[in-house]
Amino acid sequence: LNWVTLHVLDLVGVAVFAVSGALAAGRKALDLFGVLVIAALTAVGGGTIRDLLLDRHPIFWIADPTYLIVIGTAALLTLLYVRIRPPPGNALSLADALGLALFSLSGAQIAVAEGLSPIIAVLMGTITGVAGGVLRDVLCAEIPLILRRDIYATAAIAGISFYLTAEALGVPRLWAFALGTSVVVALRVSAIVWGLRLPTFKLPESPT
Amino acid sequence: LNWVTLHVLDLVGVAVFAVSGALAAGRKALDLFGVLVIAALTAVGGGTIRDLLLDRHPIFWIADPTYLIVIGTAALLTLLYVRIRPPPGNALSLADALGLALFSLSGAQIAVAEGLSPIIAVLMGTITGVAGGVLRDVLCAEIPLILRRDIYATAAIAGISFYLTAEALGVPRLWAFALGTSVVVALRVSAIVWGLRLPTFKLPESPT
Amino acid sequence: LNWVTLHVLDLVGVAVFAVSGALAAGRKALDLFGVLVIAALTAVGGGTIRDLLLDRHPIFWIADPTYLIVIGTAALLTLLYVRIRPPPGNALSLADALGLALFSLSGAQIAVAEGLSPIIAVLMGTITGVAGGVLRDVLCAEIPLILRRDIYATAAIAGISFYLTAEALGVPRLWAFALGTSVVVALRVSAIVWGLRLPTFKLPESPT
Repeated sequence: LNWVTLHVLDLVGVAVFAVSGALAAGRKALDLFGVLVIAALTAVGGGTIRDLLLDRHPIFWIADPTYLIVIGTAALLTLLYVRIRPPPGNALSLADALGLALFSLSGAQIAVAEGLSPIIAVLMGTITGVAGGVLRDVLCAEIPLILRRDIYATAAIAGISFYLTAEALGVPRLWAFALGTSVVVALRVSAIVWGLRLPTFKLPESPT
Repeated sequence: LNWVTLHVLDLVGVAVFAVSGALAAGRKALDLFGVLVIAALTAVGGGTIRDLLLDRHPIFWIADPTYLIVIGTAALLTLLYVRIRPPPGNALSLADALGLALFSLSGAQIAVAEGLSPIIAVLMGTITGVAGGVLRDVLCAEIPLILRRDIYATAAIAGISFYLTAEALGVPRLWAFALGTSVVVALRVSAIVWGLRLPTFKLPESPT
Repeated sequence: LNWVTLHVLDLVGVAVFAVSGALAAGRKALDLFGVLVIAALTAVGGGTIRDLLLDRHPIFWIADPTYLIVIGTAALLTLLYVRIRPPPGNALSLADALGLALFSLSGAQIAVAEGLSPIIAVLMGTITGVAGGVLRDVLCAEIPLILRRDIYATAAIAGISFYLTAEALGVPRLWAFALGTSVVVALRVSAIVWGLRLPTFKLPESPT
């Protein structure tokens, strides 16, 4: 798993998340600028928060503006596409699962490379994978989707755990990465196909 | 007031705020992961923003994962407890007032130790004490409670001011800390018991 | 365009944005503390995010508490004023356009001085100009205004582009700055007077 491949996979993840952000923005009647902002936040928000928390500078998209160009292109193509045909739900869900896997594992990998403990690595990977979507939902004035429904962050946590455990057991990184990715994608697909969810908690509304 | 005691008080504050976050999440029908996220953000959000603004790295919960373990435990115990009995409003309010006092004073103390001016110390202490609750409310898509109601941040500001003034006048830190804590808790309890509030401002809704 | 003048212009921008934040808070029935928080976030939020992303420390308002004093004074005067007369819509819009211009151009200028590429400079300038207003709207639990309506961020982007292009062509900085400011203000005034907007996108609400 060399660095060129990783960088390409990273850009694929950014593009997929930008598409997902542009579609979310489209549901809110935002203008062109709003769509680009939401697409960009969805795509790089998680990695940016990770870099700020770990004090890694320059932030990855400041060091390499390719990310911004990919995001802008992906968002604009999305807007053109949905004028012609409705967005393909299933293809997008699969791409989103792949993006989640790539971001979560690379985020965890970065934390490990900084010498941090496994619990922090799992957390940083999860933040990298899901925080962009949380920012997207907050800016759209909604309770973040991942806090309410189905197996999303949980898929990231499981995939990262498999990845880190496999590597700790001596599995070559390439195979450990493939294993972790498979776990994330399999859990996401299962959650979508069978409607799996975590239990929710509901207290009576109190007057506080 | 040695560092072991301070660390224990800090963990108590984190636990109390995690409970308050878990209860807020419980009112929003979030899933297990959502409850943990809201609990963690409520507990460490203020200190994290303080550390980012002051460029203190590693962030306190990255340096010491004990915080995360305390948060997870406190949130899970809260979820188990509320299955059996309704949450104890008054006990929780008192604990929350104590957490607010501990976070605000330690945040101000950190700013002073960095050589910053009193106005910045008051601000950093207040951010440390209240920003976690603001993040909790924003993620729950509500206007933050502290911006709308009663004496909350104001209690933090008053307590910090008493603490810094007492220390500047030569009062030993332990006593100054106890004085500041008492001011915060007394103001919070008064606000809850007598329903004290700051004046609110309401402009007519304009077509802007 | 010496540094004293720039600093004064910067403080004017901060004051204008604090007034705009205080007025927004006034529409939400926040208390005195809430008004001050929203005013401060509106005024320094954009520059703070810029400084965090670029790892510039100390953050500008920590280094120079004058900003906080100006914000507090501007917000309190606003509250007193609106008790007597309704807020002057047009004067405020013009002042806000000027604040947007000053923040956007100075943010871009800072990025250029850090040796960053033009695309990042445009982005940092835009963030400096508009992120404070986004934070204001998020805390008021609204979809940020700039994502939904008229030419706002677009005016910042255009003004920054003119400014950077002029400077790259050898125009003295003072004149380039005046040109960029004029472009921002002219676009904002046109947008308000003629109701110009960017096209918006609206997908059908999906069951996702």
